[in-house]
Amino acid sequence: MAKRRVMVPAEEVDLSTVKYEPEAIQAPHLTGFVFKLFVRIIEAPVIGSLIISYLKKQNRIVQMLRNTVIPEAPMFKPEFPPQEPESGVVAVDEDGGPEDRVESSLKCLPHYDLAGRWNGDQALPFQYWKIRDYAYAYRSRLVTPYMVAERIIPIIEEFGSKRPPAPLLISFDAEEVRKQAAASTQRFEEGKPLSILDGIFMAIKDDIDCLPHPSKGGSTWLHEVRSVKKDAVSVSKLRSCGVIFLGKTNMHEFGMGTTGNNPNYGTTRNPHAPERYTGGSSSGPAAIVASGLCSAALGTDGGGSIRIPSSLCGVVGLKTTYGRTDMRGCTCDCGTVEILGPIASTVEDVMLVYAAILGSSPADRISLRPSVPCLPILSSYDGLNALGSLRLGKYTAWFNDVNSTDISDKCEDVLDLLCKTHGCEMVEIVIPELHEMRNSHLVSIGSEMLCSVNPDCDDGKDVRMTYDTRTSLALFQSFTASDYVAAQCLRRRIMYHHMEIFKKVDVIVTPTTGLSYAVYHRSKSSWTSCHFCACGL
Amino acid sequence: MAKRRVMVPAEEVDLSTVKYEPEAIQAPHLTGFVFKLFVRIIEAPVIGSLIISYLKKQNRIVQMLRNTVIPEAPMFKPEFPPQEPESGVVAVDEDGGPEDRVESSLKCLPHYDLAGRWNGDQALPFQYWKIRDYAYAYRSRLVTPYMVAERIIPIIEEFGSKRPPAPLLISFDAEEVRKQAAASTQRFEEGKPLSILDGIFMAIKDDIDCLPHPSKGGSTWLHEVRSVKKDAVSVSKLRSCGVIFLGKTNMHEFGMGTTGNNPNYGTTRNPHAPERYTGGSSSGPAAIVASGLCSAALGTDGGGSIRIPSSLCGVVGLKTTYGRTDMRGCTCDCGTVEILGPIASTVEDVMLVYAAILGSSPADRISLRPSVPCLPILSSYDGLNALGSLRLGKYTAWFNDVNSTDISDKCEDVLDLLCKTHGCEMVEIVIPELHEMRNSHLVSIGSEMLCSVNPDCDDGKDVRMTYDTRTSLALFQSFTASDYVAAQCLRRRIMYHHMEIFKKVDVIVTPTTGLSYAVYHRSKSSWTSCHFCACGL
Repeated sequence: MAKRRVMVPAEEVDLSTVKYEPEAIQAPHLTGFVFKLFVRIIEAPVIGSLIISYLKKQNRIVQMLRNTVIPEAPMFKPEFPPQEPESGVVAVDEDGGPEDRVESSLKCLPHYDLAGRWNGDQALPFQYWKIRDYAYAYRSRLVTPYMVAERIIPIIEEFGSKRPPAPLLISFDAEEVRKQAAASTQRFEEGKPLSILDGIFMAIKDDIDCLPHPSKGGSTWLHEVRSVKKDAVSVSKLRSCGVIFLGKTNMHEFGMGTTGNNPNYGTTRNPHAPERYTGGSSSGPAAIVASGLCSAALGTDGGGSIRIPSSLCGVVGLKTTYGRTDMRGCTCDCGTVEILGPIASTVEDVMLVYAAILGSSPADRISLRPSVPCLPILSSYDGLNALGSLRLGKYTAWFNDVNSTDISDKCEDVLDLLCKTHGCEMVEIVIPELHEMRNSHLVSIGSEMLCSVNPDCDDGKDVRMTYDTRTSLALFQSFTASDYVAAQCLRRRIMYHHMEIFKKVDVIVTPTTGLSYAVYHRSKSSWTSCHFCACGL
Repeated sequence: MAKRRVMVPAEEVDLSTVKYEPEAIQAPHLTGFVFKLFVRIIEAPVIGSLIISYLKKQNRIVQMLRNTVIPEAPMFKPEFPPQEPESGVVAVDEDGGPEDRVESSLKCLPHYDLAGRWNGDQALPFQYWKIRDYAYAYRSRLVTPYMVAERIIPIIEEFGSKRPPAPLLISFDAEEVRKQAAASTQRFEEGKPLSILDGIFMAIKDDIDCLPHPSKGGSTWLHEVRSVKKDAVSVSKLRSCGVIFLGKTNMHEFGMGTTGNNPNYGTTRNPHAPERYTGGSSSGPAAIVASGLCSAALGTDGGGSIRIPSSLCGVVGLKTTYGRTDMRGCTCDCGTVEILGPIASTVEDVMLVYAAILGSSPADRISLRPSVPCLPILSSYDGLNALGSLRLGKYTAWFNDVNSTDISDKCEDVLDLLCKTHGCEMVEIVIPELHEMRNSHLVSIGSEMLCSVNPDCDDGKDVRMTYDTRTSLALFQSFTASDYVAAQCLRRRIMYHHMEIFKKVDVIVTPTTGLSYAVYHRSKSSWTSCHFCACGL
């Protein structure tokens, strides 16, 4: 255990206070037989690592790497070669205002089908309200954001007081929501909504900063060592579009699991089957959208954390491409796999929210060279059928490797619809080295997660983590540095294989999860198998 | 111990042979008290890691990362932002022919001072022959490359048969050298030398491929598992300029040390003091240049391996910027720190060789965006004094942290000369976080080296390594994956600090080594302290 040490950002280092410290090296000087004996001993399993540890500690090697909070991201980013321009898309300006991008994305959507959504002043029943439904209702003065807030608040409060607890939100302030809703209502009254997202209710995963809430990452203590001073960049973009934030959603502690099980606050239940998991780690975001309480939520995903709960809750989640969004203000901002993205009830809502948050930070663009961001044109244009032109890649053996054929059969039905009704083309593909991919993914994400909590673990916070998290950390601690390097070599291969596949197809189709929520079992406060299983995180 | 497995390059994977393998997951399903007990056990020091190891092995996690030779480099490369264009330089075309670049670099050199180098047909004594001296002699028919070869060969053979052995070259074929020299001589006779480098003798470090020699990296077995099929890219560029290759030089085994001690072949001695080390790991390249036997050599450097032996042998070494040269065909081609570069007796010869080998591989340019390569104009031009315009940054406390003031005093004399005679400006600078830099460097290079030998160690080759190497490996094995990630975060900081410094100065001046060769002690076959000391590798 060593004292946690926090570095200031590199650009804030005060050089006038820097003191040069000569190194005092302590190492045995050994020759001949004694040296050979020494080598045999340090190569031995237990005593060897003890001696190496001692020598490293004597010479202050590595220890600082474990107890120091380093504000910088790693020097490297996952790279991929520039892509060919795509057809059927519009380019958007990532440096422009989020309202302008949302406006561009609106133009990509099919015509808003009033008759299909409304019966006079009444929305048709048994459907999620889409963002454009709210937008229509607000602009037609059928309802105000404030009226909606007053409908949502009591339900949130009810969820928060269930026994056993199963909260959707773990930080919620009804007055704060009313204040935002009143401001939005006022803008509509003045005829000056900020964008199509004005008055739209969203929830934010607990690992993304959103004022006035703390960011705990689903833990009980993160806010004690990390305070929230401003909105995350993505949240601030949404706020400038007029979005109303309900609060911070529940999640799997530190995102280190895919069930959503959270003994700290209670486990969010699947709205379609309250005795079942939502999937995780973005359990709350998926559940609150699936429950119909808000149009969209922001989650984070490093290995399924948006996609798994979206799948199990029957909503739409988008893991954005690394580098497409700005991770500043997320607690998980220092790795090479974790990104943020939207969850919503429909593809069009995901696209509207994505358009708002899209845009990498200039610092990331130093090392990443993403091609110009673009959005698909979902409406028919120039007589072309955008959907129908897609080539769908299917690796059948993988596609069918599911817990129940119910899942693959249902997915086959969707593919049938896409091909027969919309004219998509199906192409059989092979994805080599899936086992290597899972391994390199697990080592990459696990090591990066461990690195970010190490200073706190060293500082004694590990005993305040859930047993589930501690199981993961014990596994992650076993990964060596050379494992991590090898994993990065594999990633380059895997990227090559995928680039080749995407020369032949536009999309790889697969069931999002090999399990349906029906078999994603509920459990009380325990779960050990996931990091050893195929789904990763 | 696990069987070594070699992957073919990603682009050669035969997809028709790929078989989908579903995962069979084995993990305990534990709940409640038993689960909590399990967590406590896996968190315990020894038994915990044994259980985690067992579970990982059961589920084929990580093992493949240690026994597989992955031909791809890591996905990431060290990145730095594009630089401001410099003055006093000429840009060169890295995609053009090496002969053309060498021709460009010739134009950057001061006028060749015939009177200062020759007395009639006799070269002045007590000076190294520079490349332009050979070029002049060949073109004036004072001597032929073949005649030079016949002078060099017996000396190399003499060095190779010393007892105890202290070879300069560990792979040498006199007939092969004669053949190259005869071909070069023929070109001069026909009046068609390939470039200024035609007939210039060079030696190649044993970790860089050069036909017809094997590449052993200074070990006794690497050639058994890795055959040489063609020249390394840099060697092939030099060959097309007419360079004559003497053979493969001795080195510290796998470059994992800075002394040059090599019990496999005998330790190359410092030509200035045969009872002393040359420094390493490019011990042979520095020694053979310092001995005057050839004009230049190629070495590799990840943490001083060119610079340290160049310093201790009194010659000039250049660690090139990462990404400036092509590492294909080097045994150490899969990391983020190791590069290759020239060693020669003068700055101008280093520049001529650098111009020939300069140029990154297109694959690296996918992720790296190096600015256009350029060479300094060493001649006075337009009345400007290129040298005199330099701002020299000196961190005095660090500069003076040397084993003996002899070193810092001598370096001060050089600075005096630069400032008083040439008009350079001296600027006091501060380099923060040097201790962090050493740590992150050690973890980066050690982990990347370990990753590249892991499959062979797993295959039982570790016992055929020197005790020195095994000591290093024992240390490197103790680095965790999260240490590596933290080291990369520190690298971003350190890069920031250096970028800031280079806004104020053009050069950071420091003694290359804090030791002089006079105190770099000779030792028989042992040495343990270096990885625990300040110099890194």
